[in-house]
Amino acid sequence: MIIVMNPNATASQIDNINKTLTEYGFTGHSIHGVNRIVIGAVGDRQAIASLGLEAMAGVEKVVPIRRPYKLVSREAKREDTVITVKDVAIGGESVTLIAGPCAVESIDQMMLAAEKVRLAGAKILRGGTYKPRTSPYAFQGLEEEGLKILNTAGRFAGLPTVTEVIDLPSLEIASRYVDILQIGARNMQNFRLLQAVGQTRLPVILKRGLSATIEEWLMAAEYIMAQGNSQIILCERGIRTFETATRNTLDLSAVPLVKELSHLPILVDPSHSTGASRLVASMSRAAVAAGADGLLVEVHPEPCKALCDGPQSLEPEDFTRMVESLRPIAAAVGREI
Amino acid sequence: MIIVMNPNATASQIDNINKTLTEYGFTGHSIHGVNRIVIGAVGDRQAIASLGLEAMAGVEKVVPIRRPYKLVSREAKREDTVITVKDVAIGGESVTLIAGPCAVESIDQMMLAAEKVRLAGAKILRGGTYKPRTSPYAFQGLEEEGLKILNTAGRFAGLPTVTEVIDLPSLEIASRYVDILQIGARNMQNFRLLQAVGQTRLPVILKRGLSATIEEWLMAAEYIMAQGNSQIILCERGIRTFETATRNTLDLSAVPLVKELSHLPILVDPSHSTGASRLVASMSRAAVAAGADGLLVEVHPEPCKALCDGPQSLEPEDFTRMVESLRPIAAAVGREI
Amino acid sequence: MIIVMNPNATASQIDNINKTLTEYGFTGHSIHGVNRIVIGAVGDRQAIASLGLEAMAGVEKVVPIRRPYKLVSREAKREDTVITVKDVAIGGESVTLIAGPCAVESIDQMMLAAEKVRLAGAKILRGGTYKPRTSPYAFQGLEEEGLKILNTAGRFAGLPTVTEVIDLPSLEIASRYVDILQIGARNMQNFRLLQAVGQTRLPVILKRGLSATIEEWLMAAEYIMAQGNSQIILCERGIRTFETATRNTLDLSAVPLVKELSHLPILVDPSHSTGASRLVASMSRAAVAAGADGLLVEVHPEPCKALCDGPQSLEPEDFTRMVESLRPIAAAVGREI
Amino acid sequence: MIIVMNPNATASQIDNINKTLTEYGFTGHSIHGVNRIVIGAVGDRQAIASLGLEAMAGVEKVVPIRRPYKLVSREAKREDTVITVKDVAIGGESVTLIAGPCAVESIDQMMLAAEKVRLAGAKILRGGTYKPRTSPYAFQGLEEEGLKILNTAGRFAGLPTVTEVIDLPSLEIASRYVDILQIGARNMQNFRLLQAVGQTRLPVILKRGLSATIEEWLMAAEYIMAQGNSQIILCERGIRTFETATRNTLDLSAVPLVKELSHLPILVDPSHSTGASRLVASMSRAAVAAGADGLLVEVHPEPCKALCDGPQSLEPEDFTRMVESLRPIAAAVGREI
Repeated sequence: MIIVMNPNATASQIDNINKTLTEYGFTGHSIHGVNRIVIGAVGDRQAIASLGLEAMAGVEKVVPIRRPYKLVSREAKREDTVITVKDVAIGGESVTLIAGPCAVESIDQMMLAAEKVRLAGAKILRGGTYKPRTSPYAFQGLEEEGLKILNTAGRFAGLPTVTEVIDLPSLEIASRYVDILQIGARNMQNFRLLQAVGQTRLPVILKRGLSATIEEWLMAAEYIMAQGNSQIILCERGIRTFETATRNTLDLSAVPLVKELSHLPILVDPSHSTGASRLVASMSRAAVAAGADGLLVEVHPEPCKALCDGPQSLEPEDFTRMVESLRPIAAAVGREI
Repeated sequence: MIIVMNPNATASQIDNINKTLTEYGFTGHSIHGVNRIVIGAVGDRQAIASLGLEAMAGVEKVVPIRRPYKLVSREAKREDTVITVKDVAIGGESVTLIAGPCAVESIDQMMLAAEKVRLAGAKILRGGTYKPRTSPYAFQGLEEEGLKILNTAGRFAGLPTVTEVIDLPSLEIASRYVDILQIGARNMQNFRLLQAVGQTRLPVILKRGLSATIEEWLMAAEYIMAQGNSQIILCERGIRTFETATRNTLDLSAVPLVKELSHLPILVDPSHSTGASRLVASMSRAAVAAGADGLLVEVHPEPCKALCDGPQSLEPEDFTRMVESLRPIAAAVGREI
Repeated sequence: MIIVMNPNATASQIDNINKTLTEYGFTGHSIHGVNRIVIGAVGDRQAIASLGLEAMAGVEKVVPIRRPYKLVSREAKREDTVITVKDVAIGGESVTLIAGPCAVESIDQMMLAAEKVRLAGAKILRGGTYKPRTSPYAFQGLEEEGLKILNTAGRFAGLPTVTEVIDLPSLEIASRYVDILQIGARNMQNFRLLQAVGQTRLPVILKRGLSATIEEWLMAAEYIMAQGNSQIILCERGIRTFETATRNTLDLSAVPLVKELSHLPILVDPSHSTGASRLVASMSRAAVAAGADGLLVEVHPEPCKALCDGPQSLEPEDFTRMVESLRPIAAAVGREI
Repeated sequence: MIIVMNPNATASQIDNINKTLTEYGFTGHSIHGVNRIVIGAVGDRQAIASLGLEAMAGVEKVVPIRRPYKLVSREAKREDTVITVKDVAIGGESVTLIAGPCAVESIDQMMLAAEKVRLAGAKILRGGTYKPRTSPYAFQGLEEEGLKILNTAGRFAGLPTVTEVIDLPSLEIASRYVDILQIGARNMQNFRLLQAVGQTRLPVILKRGLSATIEEWLMAAEYIMAQGNSQIILCERGIRTFETATRNTLDLSAVPLVKELSHLPILVDPSHSTGASRLVASMSRAAVAAGADGLLVEVHPEPCKALCDGPQSLEPEDFTRMVESLRPIAAAVGREI
C-alpha cells in the first residue's frame, strides 16, 4: 500500500502512521517528494487495509499496489485451468459452444432446441429454469419441472447441461439435475450464494455483473475458490454504460485482460450483451478472435414465441450458419470448434 | 406499447402484428408516418410484452408507454406513505436521521455510538451485522452476536434499530432483533430476498443498486409490495459512473423524481455515496434541501479504528455539528428535524 | 510518481528505471514489497511523465501522486477567488443567480426575460447566441444579431450578460458585446478555444464536460489560467451516466470537492443537468445547500414557444417563487441572495 | 413523434396539442390507451421537434420514432461507401491498415516508422502533429514542422498520410500536407470544425467521442456531409465507462450496428481504446472479425522513448506479427489485408 499524506501533514501525523504500521508488524518506508510525503507500507494488503489508515489524520489517500485476489490469479497458477464436464473441455484447445433457449418452456421446445444446437456444433445445453426478472409480474421460470425437462433433453441429445441458480433452494434442487451451475450478473456479488456454490463440486459459470469492474469480478471468483471449488468459468456478458443502442456494451477487451490476470477460462455471451439477434454472429466472431474459450448463445426454435428474451435469440438455422463462420476464425487463433 | 415497424416492413408483416394483438384480446392502431408505420397497442403492458412482438418479422423496436410498476406508483396512491416505527415516523413532516457505525464491532462501541447519535438528534440506530464485502478475506460482520449488541444498544438509548440482511437465514435471525430491515445495493435485484422481506411485516429500507435505473429500483420495491409488505423506504446511495474522485456519484435528482413517481418515502445515504467523511455534511445539507425524508449516516466513535469504511464515517462531534446545520435547511423546506 | 514493477521484473529492468530517473535529474526510491518492488520517483510530475516509464520493460503501471494542475489548485492560492463583473461578485458571500433563455430569439423575448429575472433576483442575464446543436438541421442561434439583442436587454435591465462562444470568430465578436464568456460542455477540451479565452481579460464560465472527470475539468481551467486569465468560474451541469430518467446526472458532490481542490468559484446549472423544469427548483435548493456560489438557470417567458430546450426552462413566475425558496437556504449556509 | 400525455391530462390539453400540430401542417392521431392518451404526430422529425410540444401542459414525454440523421443513413444509400485515397480503398473488400506513431517527433523516427509499417502491410501512415493534450504543460505537437516530416516520410514510403486537426488554422495548414484529415474524439461535437472539414474535399476520419452515443456520432457525420463532403470514415476508439482496467472500453458492437445504420466505412482504433500495447493484437483480431473496414494502430520505433502514449504503442516487430495473424481472420470474413 502507498499512503499519500496531505501536503500539510504534520511530522507527528506521519509518525503516527509509521507507529501504527510497526505496531501491527508491518514496515513503512517514507519517501520525501517535492511537496508531500508518501509512505510505502509493506505487508499483506488485506491486513494493512484493515488498519483503517485512510481515516487517520493527515492521510490524503491510500493506493493499493497488490491485487486483492490470490487463488484465481495467474501468479497463483501459471497454466490455464481446463474444466472438463463429462467429455467436454472448457478452457483447452477447443472453443466450446453452449447454446439453448433463455428459458425452458416445454419438453417439445427443449428436445427440438437440444437436437438443433447439437447438430450445429454446440457441446453443452443451456436453459433457464429459475429466472431473475426485473418485473414481479413476468414469467419466473418452470423451476423443478423445467430442470427435469432440461435434464431429459440433455440426456436425449447427449449434451451436458447448465442452468442459473438464484438462491440456496434453487441451488440445492438444480444440483441434482444439471452438470454446470450458473451465477447470473445480478447475483455476482451475492456473496452467500457464491460461498454456497463454492461448497459444491460442480463447475460454475460466473457472469460478470452489470457494473462490476474486472477486479470485483475476479474477487467474486475468489469467494467461490476460497470455499474449495476451483472449477470456475468466467463469462463476459456486457456492462452497463450510457449507450442505449445495444442492451449492454460488450467489453471484449476483458477477454485478453482476464487471461493475463487469471488462469480461469472465460466465455462470452453475445446474446445478453447486445440484446439483438442480428448482432450476435458478428460479436461471436469477434469474441472467438479475441481469444474467448467459448460462447454462451441463446437459441430458440421459435424466437417470436419465446417467453423470455425472444429479440436476442437466434433461430437454429442462423445458429448453424454462425457456427460455420466461426470455424476458420477459431483456426486462425490456433483453436478448433 | 408503440410498435415501430421497419421502413421496409411488408403489409403482411404489419398484418401479422395486428392479428397477434387481436388474437390475445388487445387492439392495435396503425399510424402511417412519413416513411414507416407505427402501431399503438392498447392493453396491459406486461401482457403485451409477453407476446414477444419485438422478435416478429418487420418490427424495428417496441417502445413501452406505461410505467411497469403499479403498487408503488403515485398513480396507485396519491398521498405520501408515512411509515411509523415505534414512535418514529419516516416520510412525514420530520426529516428522520438514522445514524450509527458501518459495522457493529463491540458493545462498548455501540453503546457509545447510540448515546452520541441520539443526543445529536438521530431517531434510529443503524449497525451492520452481516456485511457483504468485496473480498472474502475482509471482516464479514458479527452476525447474531452483533444483532444482540445492536438490540441492547438500541434499547439502552431508546432508538429503534436497522440492520442489513443478505439472505434468508440472516433475514430470519435479524427479524427477531431489529425494527427495520435493510436490503443493500448489491442485493437490490436479489428477487428471492425481496420476496422474502415482502412476506415479513417489518419496514424495509431498499437501497438503490449501483447501476440500477430509477425504474428498476421501483420495480424492486414492487417485488416487495407485491408480497403484501408496503412499508418500504427507498434510499439513494450513489450510482457507479466514470468519476473516481468520489466513491460513487450521489444522484440527488432521484429524490424529487422518485417523489413524483412514487408515494414511498426516500432517504439519502451521504456516506456510501461519497466515501469521504469530509463531504458528508455538504451532501446531507443538499439532500435535505432536495426534499429527502431522511438521512442514513455512518457515525463511528473512532473512525480510524473502524473495521469497515472508516474513511467515510463521521466522528460524533462532527455529526452533532452537522445536524445543527441541517435544522434551518429543513425549516426552509417546511420540515423539521 | 510511484512506479509499480511486475512481480517478475528482473534486477536489470529495475536498474534501468533507476538509471533513467537519475539521468534526467530525478531520484528513485525502491521499496521491496512482499512480492514486488515499487519505485517512488521524486520530481515534477509532468517532467517524469514525459520519460515514458510506463512503456519500459518490467513496469506494470505508474501511479501519479501529485495532482497535475497547479495554478487553479487550492495549494497555489488558499483564499477563495472572487470575480467581480460590474458590481456583481461571484464567489463571495452572495449566491449569484444567472438566468435567462437558452437561446436569444427576439428583442421582445429578451426584454421581457431580462426584466422578469431581474425582478426575481437574478444578477446576470444569460442568452445563447451561438448554439452548439446535435443536429445540423436545428436552430443554430442568431449570432451577432442575437448578441446585439442580449446587450440591449442587459443594459435595459442593468444586468451584466453572458453568452457561449464556440470558436475563435464567435469569441472575437462576442467579446465586444458581453461581460462574461461561456465555454460549453462540448468544448471543455477544445484546447485552442481555452487558450484563446485565456488570452482575453473577460471572466469565463467553464462548464464541465459530459464525461469529464473533475481532474480533467480543473486541467481545462489550468489551460485558461496558464494564458494569464484567472477569472474562471466553474459550472457543474450534469454528467453522462447510464440513467436516462433525467437528461444527465447532476453531480452535486463536485461542489464541495472542487472547493477543496481549487480556489475558483463554482456554479450549478440545474436546467441542463435535469432537462426537466419540474426538477429545477429542488435541485437549485440542493445546489445552494451544497455550497454552490451561484446558479445558471434557464428562464423563458413562454417555454413552450422556445426555439431550444423549452422542456427545461422555467416560467418567470416559477423562477420568482424558486428564488424566494432559496433565500432561507442561502441564509442557513451563511450566505445571501 | 409519439406524444405521451399525462394520465391526468385534460381534454383541452389534448386538444391544444392537436391544434398546434394542425396549425403547423402536421397531423395528430390520438390513441386512447388503458390509462392515458398518446398522440402520434406525423411529419418531419426536426420540424415537429421545433414545436416545443414537450413543454406544453399535459405532456409527459415525447418519443421520437424516426432517426435524426438522413444523408449518412443506410436508407439514403443502400450500397457501402468506398473511399479511395490515391490507390488505397477504405470500405471495400480489403481491411485497410493505418499505422504510425502517436506523435511526429523527428524525421528519423518517421522515416523508420513509415518503412516498417509499410513492410508489415500498412497502407496509410498516421502521425500526430497537433496534439490535444489534457495538460497544458504536455508536448503539444510539432505542428507545421511535423506536417512536413509526415509528408516526406509518406512520400518516401509511398503511403498516403493522415493527421488530426484541432481548429481552423491547423485544418488550413494540414490540408496542404496530408491526404486524410482526422477529427479526434474530443472534437467530435466541435460543430464548427465539422462544418469546416465538410467544406474541404479531403477524406475525414471521424472518431467517436468518449461519451457519444452512436446516434450523436452519426449526427456529427451528418454535420460534415451536410456541407457537401461525403468522404467520411468513422472510427470507434473506445468509450468512457466505469471500468478503469483499460483506458476506455472498446465498443466493438458499434461496428455491425453502424454498418446497419449507415453506409459509411468504419475503422477501429485498438490503441487508444485499450491504452495498453499488450491488448492491441487481440482487439485488432476481434475488430477484423467483427467486420471493421480497417484499423488505426499506433506503432513507434521505440515506444519507451515516445513523447506521447508510449504504453499503448506497438514496436514494429509486434505490429508485423500482428498483421500476419490478421490475414486468416480477414479471409474468414471474406476480406483480405
